Amino acid sequence: MNFIQIDEIIKKALTEDSFYGDITTESLIDEDSKCIVDLIAKEDGILAGQEVFNRVYKLIGNITIQWLKKEGDLLRNKDTLAYIKGNTRNVLTGERIALNLLQKMSGIATKTRRFVSLTEGTKTKIVCTRKTTPTLRTLEKYAVKIGGGSNHRFSLSDSFMIKDNHIKACGCIKEAVKKAKESYPYLRFIEVEVESLEQVQEALNTQADVLMLDNMCISEIKEAVKLINGTKIVEASGNMTIDKIKEVANIGVDFISCGELTHSVKALDISMKNLTLL
Amino acid sequence: MNFIQIDEIIKKALTEDSFYGDITTESLIDEDSKCIVDLIAKEDGILAGQEVFNRVYKLIGNITIQWLKKEGDLLRNKDTLAYIKGNTRNVLTGERIALNLLQKMSGIATKTRRFVSLTEGTKTKIVCTRKTTPTLRTLEKYAVKIGGGSNHRFSLSDSFMIKDNHIKACGCIKEAVKKAKESYPYLRFIEVEVESLEQVQEALNTQADVLMLDNMCISEIKEAVKLINGTKIVEASGNMTIDKIKEVANIGVDFISCGELTHSVKALDISMKNLTLL
Amino acid sequence: MNFIQIDEIIKKALTEDSFYGDITTESLIDEDSKCIVDLIAKEDGILAGQEVFNRVYKLIGNITIQWLKKEGDLLRNKDTLAYIKGNTRNVLTGERIALNLLQKMSGIATKTRRFVSLTEGTKTKIVCTRKTTPTLRTLEKYAVKIGGGSNHRFSLSDSFMIKDNHIKACGCIKEAVKKAKESYPYLRFIEVEVESLEQVQEALNTQADVLMLDNMCISEIKEAVKLINGTKIVEASGNMTIDKIKEVANIGVDFISCGELTHSVKALDISMKNLTLL
Amino acid sequence: MNFIQIDEIIKKALTEDSFYGDITTESLIDEDSKCIVDLIAKEDGILAGQEVFNRVYKLIGNITIQWLKKEGDLLRNKDTLAYIKGNTRNVLTGERIALNLLQKMSGIATKTRRFVSLTEGTKTKIVCTRKTTPTLRTLEKYAVKIGGGSNHRFSLSDSFMIKDNHIKACGCIKEAVKKAKESYPYLRFIEVEVESLEQVQEALNTQADVLMLDNMCISEIKEAVKLINGTKIVEASGNMTIDKIKEVANIGVDFISCGELTHSVKALDISMKNLTLL
Amino acid sequence: MNFIQIDEIIKKALTEDSFYGDITTESLIDEDSKCIVDLIAKEDGILAGQEVFNRVYKLIGNITIQWLKKEGDLLRNKDTLAYIKGNTRNVLTGERIALNLLQKMSGIATKTRRFVSLTEGTKTKIVCTRKTTPTLRTLEKYAVKIGGGSNHRFSLSDSFMIKDNHIKACGCIKEAVKKAKESYPYLRFIEVEVESLEQVQEALNTQADVLMLDNMCISEIKEAVKLINGTKIVEASGNMTIDKIKEVANIGVDFISCGELTHSVKALDISMKNLTLL
Amino acid sequence: MNFIQIDEIIKKALTEDSFYGDITTESLIDEDSKCIVDLIAKEDGILAGQEVFNRVYKLIGNITIQWLKKEGDLLRNKDTLAYIKGNTRNVLTGERIALNLLQKMSGIATKTRRFVSLTEGTKTKIVCTRKTTPTLRTLEKYAVKIGGGSNHRFSLSDSFMIKDNHIKACGCIKEAVKKAKESYPYLRFIEVEVESLEQVQEALNTQADVLMLDNMCISEIKEAVKLINGTKIVEASGNMTIDKIKEVANIGVDFISCGELTHSVKALDISMKNLTLL
Repeated sequence: MNFIQIDEIIKKALTEDSFYGDITTESLIDEDSKCIVDLIAKEDGILAGQEVFNRVYKLIGNITIQWLKKEGDLLRNKDTLAYIKGNTRNVLTGERIALNLLQKMSGIATKTRRFVSLTEGTKTKIVCTRKTTPTLRTLEKYAVKIGGGSNHRFSLSDSFMIKDNHIKACGCIKEAVKKAKESYPYLRFIEVEVESLEQVQEALNTQADVLMLDNMCISEIKEAVKLINGTKIVEASGNMTIDKIKEVANIGVDFISCGELTHSVKALDISMKNLTLL
Repeated sequence: MNFIQIDEIIKKALTEDSFYGDITTESLIDEDSKCIVDLIAKEDGILAGQEVFNRVYKLIGNITIQWLKKEGDLLRNKDTLAYIKGNTRNVLTGERIALNLLQKMSGIATKTRRFVSLTEGTKTKIVCTRKTTPTLRTLEKYAVKIGGGSNHRFSLSDSFMIKDNHIKACGCIKEAVKKAKESYPYLRFIEVEVESLEQVQEALNTQADVLMLDNMCISEIKEAVKLINGTKIVEASGNMTIDKIKEVANIGVDFISCGELTHSVKALDISMKNLTLL
Repeated sequence: MNFIQIDEIIKKALTEDSFYGDITTESLIDEDSKCIVDLIAKEDGILAGQEVFNRVYKLIGNITIQWLKKEGDLLRNKDTLAYIKGNTRNVLTGERIALNLLQKMSGIATKTRRFVSLTEGTKTKIVCTRKTTPTLRTLEKYAVKIGGGSNHRFSLSDSFMIKDNHIKACGCIKEAVKKAKESYPYLRFIEVEVESLEQVQEALNTQADVLMLDNMCISEIKEAVKLINGTKIVEASGNMTIDKIKEVANIGVDFISCGELTHSVKALDISMKNLTLL
Repeated sequence: MNFIQIDEIIKKALTEDSFYGDITTESLIDEDSKCIVDLIAKEDGILAGQEVFNRVYKLIGNITIQWLKKEGDLLRNKDTLAYIKGNTRNVLTGERIALNLLQKMSGIATKTRRFVSLTEGTKTKIVCTRKTTPTLRTLEKYAVKIGGGSNHRFSLSDSFMIKDNHIKACGCIKEAVKKAKESYPYLRFIEVEVESLEQVQEALNTQADVLMLDNMCISEIKEAVKLINGTKIVEASGNMTIDKIKEVANIGVDFISCGELTHSVKALDISMKNLTLL
Repeated sequence: MNFIQIDEIIKKALTEDSFYGDITTESLIDEDSKCIVDLIAKEDGILAGQEVFNRVYKLIGNITIQWLKKEGDLLRNKDTLAYIKGNTRNVLTGERIALNLLQKMSGIATKTRRFVSLTEGTKTKIVCTRKTTPTLRTLEKYAVKIGGGSNHRFSLSDSFMIKDNHIKACGCIKEAVKKAKESYPYLRFIEVEVESLEQVQEALNTQADVLMLDNMCISEIKEAVKLINGTKIVEASGNMTIDKIKEVANIGVDFISCGELTHSVKALDISMKNLTLL
Repeated sequence: MNFIQIDEIIKKALTEDSFYGDITTESLIDEDSKCIVDLIAKEDGILAGQEVFNRVYKLIGNITIQWLKKEGDLLRNKDTLAYIKGNTRNVLTGERIALNLLQKMSGIATKTRRFVSLTEGTKTKIVCTRKTTPTLRTLEKYAVKIGGGSNHRFSLSDSFMIKDNHIKACGCIKEAVKKAKESYPYLRFIEVEVESLEQVQEALNTQADVLMLDNMCISEIKEAVKLINGTKIVEASGNMTIDKIKEVANIGVDFISCGELTHSVKALDISMKNLTLL
């Protein structure tokens, strides 16, 4: 993770939450008050975002955090994750933003772990997509990895993803792949989105590295995998909901990409409890 | 909405998605190519974020958008929402970010509408909380309103929310409310979080404007409402899942606040289809 | 105060003052030179901005500050406020910006204290307005509080202020207040600007929380206060110069808002003197 | 003026004034409403900041402004300065920020004109200092010029200003000037602050270009001017209040620098009136 | 190219060049003056940066540019490249920054073309490295492409480059490649830097995609290419000065990477001449 | 140097190099790994940018640097400049950006020293121009000084440079200088670009402080210097390549300005070697 980017995100988040300060805390709590508070899981899940949480309080200042759990640990409801100690005003003013980030990242890791567990015993890997929350992609891609998944493209600059519209504009898959190869002859993978077995066949005769089977039904995926026969990397994509993962993984695709790992996530319930003034 | 803030969000989102450009599109599509493409709903829901979608393409340039639906409209699966027309490279490069924003905002509006519909026939209003996605709060608060909900505090600077920890630090509710009133004697509402009927009783004898019944069971809420008897605004909060809304609304609370309207949302499935080169 | 915002302000200020460095200091003073210098009041006033002053030097680095006075203290001409000690280059390069901020904030606190002192023995409070120096509002609102005043709205997002033009656009006060209440049913105060006793009467029959008597003469204010009779909060506004404060406060309004507390202020004269090389 | 800088200032100002939007205007005024409103002077003064005012509304959008007065014009109480026409929401949301900037700049120009008028018939010029409002220096320096004054250094990078502390650190004026000349042998003026006739004498024997007579009384200034006898540029500085300007100018100094032109200014009273819905 | 990034670069450049405006132009040229000026090559080279040049003047405003040459064209000394027409102040204030960018980018394209021309008749491609000018990488990578070269990694996030220090930390190449593959199992190429034939041999037995022959002499490169025998992509790197390109290309490596294409470049001499006032 | 500006540059550079992190280092190196590495010169030159190098690692964190050489020192090939010690991931992730900055700055200092050495025994000084790398000017101006050169204008706001186009717009040199003097009567030098002896003559009769002889041949420069005869500062400019410096300096001009000191520079070869894990 690039912490310069992450600090920017945190500063924006703190600004939107307290542009003119935290009037309750500043009015009610003494400037010198010190406290300790527990960070507690309120449901089971995977912990992700520890260092981001730390940096929220580092930017606010005068807080120390002692973690009892490690990044990626399985949390059980009521587990104490950490003790947060320091200036009471700072603890309270940062609480919501630190939690919002930790809960979102842990929610993503938790959901990813659930998908990944369904691929056990197969060679299939679960990956996320570019359907991430705008401005928070770097955090979300990281959380997917903590959950045991892997990352597809970080951005449009990483590798080639030749979709239906690109193919349409180039005339055919062959021409599209050729142009890609000419433009960046190495270090950028070429992935082609295919929607039918005819397209699979067409793509096999190109320098494409990866074929993405888009919105195919189970039987089509099976046919496609047979046809490709290990000569290209195979990714299954499009509406890959949790009930399909096991079946698709058993077919033997290399990757399953799931947008909902990042765009439709339940925040993991974590909160600060038991504040004691020191 | 403050469009200067929103443009900043969009620029950040475009930057994280294509810092070094969109290599596929730039390599495969002619600079002068023009196209038209349909924006289509792939499930039912509420449209929110139209103007944000417009601004993504305004910042990218050379695109016109003709909307067939209005902000807040109920969308049906397969509805065409808009025609997007212009430079093909620009259409494709902006597609993911424009959709990510629209899908998230529409997802929030759709979820909110569902909660709101359960309060029909009562005086109860549904509101969101500060449990929003860091850096996107302004968009999410707006989407809740489009969905028929209302907004709780925008930020820590807006009004007083005196929580258990503040009360603990001040000694008692009375003292906490007094300090708040002295610090900002007007234009900032004072809301007190109460966790028991004893606390309700204690808060009734203060200048607090709103009592937030936190994590109370149905029978406690009923008792509290009776006790308060219209002398303070009443908000029910804490784990207000969809199955409880109707029952709580029927008790006669003024507001129910739900964190999940913003922190745990399914993006509404919307996509661009039928690209035609012009 | 939100120190992330304040650090941004300080960085902008240092940048505009030394984009290409401080050529005098860098050319004339040894890199390792150390010094101590006194911060001295050159006229009577109220100290405000201590922590902002500290942060200027924290951002520059290698300076320690020992304060002899506390925030909000009454300063007398020739009082020593603090000793500033550290790298000579850094002391000199930061001097002007640190002083400009401290002098402005102390000037505001001093002026506010003068206005506030005239309300002694009454229930009236002095508040500032949105007529603040663009980009420095957070500092100025804070300085008013240090001077004993309170703050009106921080921004257009805080609460409703229904002015003549809003009323005109809605047709009448009643309709305007109704729309406001529907849009944000709680947590945002509704204030209505009224310019005549007829408008006062009209506003009394609405859910408005505060009536702002705009540019009324003394006798009108008296009539209005009588008419309102404690059923709404009353604010007097419009050209509330220092010579009127006492008289208006004696009428029994709740608040007097004064734009000049922030838009027309004399900086308090404070300077650094007696630099001794160490 | 650098409009990229100025747009940044305006964006910051709009953000601090409406991070979550203008709730009154958005709730009460129709999205499509159009209006025209007059910009009116409420006291006499000099108009400065016209283009800055324009850019506020250009950034907000959908507004046209027709000016009846020109930058630098003398305004009389009740003069109509401009007609502002366009989207009603946008007119109202930008009103306060546009006015705050225009009033501040016009206030500076007005005060400067007053000081400058007292130097008529002499060769003396009035200049401002670095005692400007942090982050707004570029606007304030410009407003001083519109008022007929000139600008001292923009920043610490422009030219040398050798003050008492620099002299102390270098041992003597001669050594300080020598170091300055070696560091930047041309294109940067060398100004030396002198506090006594002895120092004037000492400075005369250096390559300093300008002598700044700091906090000298009238008779000392006279002696100094005689001693310098046209061999160096002469600037009078330090507590140059309006009552001294004429006398000091008559002595024949080249420049008088006045901090209060920027640090202690009364905003010129200008407002928007007579809104008519179209 | 990502124009949002590029506009940020241009704004920074304009700010550093005229924070307080262009005093010469603002003082000497009428606000309404209009002119036309020629953009002229003063030596032979390749044109790169046309659109960046355009955007400088688009941000400044009120200028139209008519190009006579196309991006990538070979320019001859004295060629007229474009006519720039519009507000005279704006033409002059933007001149230096627009030229600095265009000259740098064209210098890179020109140098690249020279290197590329030496590979004609071979399969070898010339690529740039991450040794770019800090903050301008996106412009420089693009200029290399215009010059006929290709791009190595954009950033550390793109693909794996396993260097000596990484190998040392992992124990051996095999282990390093294995860790890379586990971390990002697809869409990121794995390149290994090898410094000896032993290392080549070691790397051949891994899943590395590319071998980078670092600082090898001609005979070593020959041996390495023979050993690899087309089973991996081969890149020659390290001190690849222009006198070696032909010889190395003839050996049959796939890529030669040259840091000096971006870190040590002569700006192409281009200037604005023949200004005519309109 | 203004370190707030410099930190901004470094953050931008780190962002463009690792927006989504350094995947190689994060995947292959243990989070707790520590190392020491040598910073080594690979050719002779002048060291510049030490403090900038330090700040790169300060922003990344957990690194200490022990310098064996001082800023401005002459480096010999194979010299060890510093030991860099700390977290291995951080050392490797910052390596390229820290080196890119140091190499560029040292390259400029080295080239400048070469030019300066040719003026020995004359009064002539070498200065750089505004032909700097966009966004890095502050670093480049500083590096020129470390190399023994001096700086011309930092920006368009510093002093007057009246060029052919300005003269054309004003009618004649005399009028142009007059306008400049009126606009900023002091603290800004007035330099006039002259292209012929006629123009020299014309400029001599004005208040211009500096004459810049633009693109004159040796004999013209000689004539001009004779004509000016010490009454104005003389700068020779325009295509001042290294082979001309000695001859032009011997004529007795005060300054020679060379654009290539900043726009066409070879980076000094410096690298990190001998990493040892601790």
